[in-house]
Amino acid sequence: MPTLAERLGYGAEDRVLILNCDDLGFCHSANVGVYEALRRGLGTSASLMVPCPWAAEAAAEYAGEDVGVHLTLTSEWASYRWGPVTASTSLVDRTGRFPRTVEEVWSHATIEEARRECRAQVELALEWGVDVTHLDAHMGTVQTNPVLFEVYLELAADHRLPLRLSGADTEEVLGFPFRQPAAERGVVFPDHFIYVPGVGSRSTLLELVPKLRPGVTEAYLHPAVDSPELRAAAPDWERRVDDHQLLVHDDDFRQLLERHRVRLTGFRELRDCMRAG
Amino acid sequence: MPTLAERLGYGAEDRVLILNCDDLGFCHSANVGVYEALRRGLGTSASLMVPCPWAAEAAAEYAGEDVGVHLTLTSEWASYRWGPVTASTSLVDRTGRFPRTVEEVWSHATIEEARRECRAQVELALEWGVDVTHLDAHMGTVQTNPVLFEVYLELAADHRLPLRLSGADTEEVLGFPFRQPAAERGVVFPDHFIYVPGVGSRSTLLELVPKLRPGVTEAYLHPAVDSPELRAAAPDWERRVDDHQLLVHDDDFRQLLERHRVRLTGFRELRDCMRAG
Repeated sequence: MPTLAERLGYGAEDRVLILNCDDLGFCHSANVGVYEALRRGLGTSASLMVPCPWAAEAAAEYAGEDVGVHLTLTSEWASYRWGPVTASTSLVDRTGRFPRTVEEVWSHATIEEARRECRAQVELALEWGVDVTHLDAHMGTVQTNPVLFEVYLELAADHRLPLRLSGADTEEVLGFPFRQPAAERGVVFPDHFIYVPGVGSRSTLLELVPKLRPGVTEAYLHPAVDSPELRAAAPDWERRVDDHQLLVHDDDFRQLLERHRVRLTGFRELRDCMRAG
Repeated sequence: MPTLAERLGYGAEDRVLILNCDDLGFCHSANVGVYEALRRGLGTSASLMVPCPWAAEAAAEYAGEDVGVHLTLTSEWASYRWGPVTASTSLVDRTGRFPRTVEEVWSHATIEEARRECRAQVELALEWGVDVTHLDAHMGTVQTNPVLFEVYLELAADHRLPLRLSGADTEEVLGFPFRQPAAERGVVFPDHFIYVPGVGSRSTLLELVPKLRPGVTEAYLHPAVDSPELRAAAPDWERRVDDHQLLVHDDDFRQLLERHRVRLTGFRELRDCMRAG
């Protein structure tokens, strides 16, 4: 059996890295940050938060880029909020917005409304002209819960899209298998996953890039440009600005990748490989 | 019968002006602009767009100010969108957001869902701690349509809140009476209304302030501070920035008001007067 890297045209020993930009569409400053990361920086793909206020701008700007859907069932900030694209009573708090925490989603969402909402997010992105390349999960909400994972996997299989999956070492922690079930459905996913606690990927990447294993690894960042909007929306704004800096302006990071002969790829290659069978 | 101005403690011949700041909560730049207009400028009151992404920030910042509810059933911009606070299928377009035009609302909204949504917007503002001082209508949607006007008037009567109403001279154009029905329900409203076509109130105000009639007149502006967020959201951003300039930094406008002995008041005075009977 060829490895995923081999199916993509790399050698079995090559270290292949996806640098995905999460939270596209979240706010205008994120749109600008991701735009620069993809077009002038090292970002290889991005994930669009379809229910967010600025998703329409992002979809118009990025229709030709390697953009997946960052399935979103939370609205985590206090001062800046968004809600579902479907009329769904189990997915919202008293203000008609998504809950702020993953735990609230897990305790209130019905599987039927979660499925309908996630499906609508993907369909809306396609309708907007986004050439959807993959699916992943904002705050892990639909990936790390065994019930919602069914929705996540089913959507990937139906649309023939690659998935972000947590690392094999987290299956025991999360308490259910997800990698084998995805493989059995013919869904392609990276071999390895670099988990970053919270937002701000610099220190994790600087430590782990030299230790990358052969095969395809996904890492994620949250690039955004500094602005009053970003500062007021996200208390972690400095780490988002630093992620933008790392992808767009950091020669040391670029050289680190080169020194370790890391090959960069996007999710589009994985999708095309999956669809080719 | 005493006039409204007399009930507020002014003379019958006094010219009393409300300078209301519309679109509070619309975006972060509007929140900052309104904040400055109310606390350092000539703004006398503001109207909160409860369904907008930044309404939560606005509600937290302005809980003590003279703030009404800017009843909102439209999401007019292309790149930046918001939707209802209730799960309402007749109030949204295919993206789960309010329609972009008043006409789309009028042709698709059911009266039941419009009533429930408007009611929820007022209740949410109260729940957030806003001392709601009045109601008005974003883009005139619920004021200038005879069916939706019933919702608007009923909400004002039930919550004992003053209303923005178009001028008496527009009743014939709009094709239904609204001032007499409001008076019969005991709802207080300004005697006169300065209509501004679109956004940007400077030229209208400079022309009409010298011609103010005795009694209470409402005029509205849309102050916001300049930012990449505002420029990307609203094609009319320059006129919003100019409204902020007029209210906060324009000594000529301040002197014009003084020269014509214009008294400034807010909606809170009207509300207290209405509640006192």
